[in-house]
Amino acid sequence: MTLPAVSPVDLSGAEALRAQLDAKAKPLGALGRIEDLAVRLGLIAGGSPPSFDRALLLVFAGDHGMNAEGVSAYPSAVTQAMVATFLAGKASANAFARAVGAELRVVDAGVDAELPSHSVLIDAKVRRGSRNAAVEPALTQAEVESALERGAGIALQAAEEGFEILALGEMGIGNTASAALLMHRLAPAPLAGCIGRGAGHDEAGLARKIAILERAAARSAATEPLEVLAEFGGLEIAMMAGAIIGAASAKIPVLVDGFIVSAAALVAIRLVPAAKDYCVFCHRSAEQGHGRLLAALEVEPLLALDLRLGEGTGALLALPMVRAASRLLSDVASLDDVLNGRL
Amino acid sequence: MTLPAVSPVDLSGAEALRAQLDAKAKPLGALGRIEDLAVRLGLIAGGSPPSFDRALLLVFAGDHGMNAEGVSAYPSAVTQAMVATFLAGKASANAFARAVGAELRVVDAGVDAELPSHSVLIDAKVRRGSRNAAVEPALTQAEVESALERGAGIALQAAEEGFEILALGEMGIGNTASAALLMHRLAPAPLAGCIGRGAGHDEAGLARKIAILERAAARSAATEPLEVLAEFGGLEIAMMAGAIIGAASAKIPVLVDGFIVSAAALVAIRLVPAAKDYCVFCHRSAEQGHGRLLAALEVEPLLALDLRLGEGTGALLALPMVRAASRLLSDVASLDDVLNGRL
Repeated sequence: MTLPAVSPVDLSGAEALRAQLDAKAKPLGALGRIEDLAVRLGLIAGGSPPSFDRALLLVFAGDHGMNAEGVSAYPSAVTQAMVATFLAGKASANAFARAVGAELRVVDAGVDAELPSHSVLIDAKVRRGSRNAAVEPALTQAEVESALERGAGIALQAAEEGFEILALGEMGIGNTASAALLMHRLAPAPLAGCIGRGAGHDEAGLARKIAILERAAARSAATEPLEVLAEFGGLEIAMMAGAIIGAASAKIPVLVDGFIVSAAALVAIRLVPAAKDYCVFCHRSAEQGHGRLLAALEVEPLLALDLRLGEGTGALLALPMVRAASRLLSDVASLDDVLNGRL
Repeated sequence: MTLPAVSPVDLSGAEALRAQLDAKAKPLGALGRIEDLAVRLGLIAGGSPPSFDRALLLVFAGDHGMNAEGVSAYPSAVTQAMVATFLAGKASANAFARAVGAELRVVDAGVDAELPSHSVLIDAKVRRGSRNAAVEPALTQAEVESALERGAGIALQAAEEGFEILALGEMGIGNTASAALLMHRLAPAPLAGCIGRGAGHDEAGLARKIAILERAAARSAATEPLEVLAEFGGLEIAMMAGAIIGAASAKIPVLVDGFIVSAAALVAIRLVPAAKDYCVFCHRSAEQGHGRLLAALEVEPLLALDLRLGEGTGALLALPMVRAASRLLSDVASLDDVLNGRL
């Protein structure tokens, strides 16, 4: 497998950036977490960050064999229907992308259907859905590697097209189950604390989901990221992990959405620890387990709005904050200039 | 005094809006607080809310006589210098307005200087600064009424120009002191819990501020909004209260920024309770007292980013959420249409 090399963010510029912010025409530290974000963006850019006007949301879609067990409240066919909705511009992520000024593309990582070609659909299908992880490994090692490589390639291509920042989102019925297993092995964390209601289980559905995931977990003792991905999938998660590594190698920030994208970030970070510096964790979702996953990664997200949709909706809501943080560095006068009439 | 009439938001449409959201192609309630916001925007609009593409930040500026006592860590002259910075497009609020796509105008409510005219400066000066509230009433009743009326007029004028939403921000050295006194009498709340470090007091500065405000509070037992405004000022706060009432009368939402704008909202709501329905409380600032003020108003803000700058910066960061919420209603297909291929 050939993944692009990631240079760790050079933290030596932090003090200079902080001094630049401290000299601005505002009380010291008065923009709180936006100032921390500005420092991070400056470090990633290795100087003045761009405006981030050119932003791309990539929605990675894939199906999960485990869904045959009833791991989700919805049937797998909904994945394909929602892909059609994204392509028609009528999903929540489309609405949010329009609201904040971002482009949207859908990546077919492994939808269990043949999808007609479309101008905003990237065909990167590794296979039609993962296998049923409750009874066998979800993916082969070759499939895992292919998904990671394609994800990295998609991010690199976006950077080459001039996108200054990537937001990641996903659509895949059953993917909170896969994400829970990945978190369990890679955070690591006790399985029960990783499992939530996903798109809307009631008590009985949640109990069934827990039982299925306990069976899946009992099948394998894997703890190494590539093996864990092969055991538990899924394709869209593996491909997002690759995209994070690709974006990091291109030195552009990645907006990490909710529980499932965070699980992909966990995989990417366990594979390539330096990738973490390029991730902006956008929100704490209402899915149980997400708070613990963020804590395991030692990150504090920007927002907490009780979102649990996915699709990149939470990542998009953080994009304007990134733009504001960047413009704080570029657009705001120093207090010295203000007090001496040099405007 | 003639203030425009405010119709309470008709809450009877809430169920229909919630049903509309529940029918969308997403799990029930999966967009959490953004769904609550969408309902609110629909109720304010009395139907389909607009896109909120046309947004205006009004930064109200004024000086405070109490600043002569050392109530702020900064001299009053900074207010005028920051107004010049806004007009030059180089303050944090300008940077954030550019980042989120909002227009910015500055309102001279009572800056203690003669300001040259400028294309984005609205001259609404009532007087050059308020009087020193530590020793005498900050404003006359006539000045209070004039500030309220001018604020309402400015909001109505903005609505007439086609702005779909107003964000309010402020600049006024010493205005956390005035806001603390207003909160103390109108929340109401014990004075000590209303006083914070403002733009950056150390322990000694905070102790001095508390002593000055205790003196000011001891001068008058006023608890009626217009009297409290006259006793403790300030002009930009009174004018923002008027602007909130004006926006509410024009049925457009108001983005409420931090501690000082929240104090203005408190005044507006105590004067015209129906105005509350039109206020979107954007963030919980780091200024001590703000959390308690929001609790007294029984509102939960959207963001908590440790901001304590003012200028409307926090309000601007919430604007994209309002736009996303609105587009959730207008742009997203129903699950029924998705599952039946009607895209």
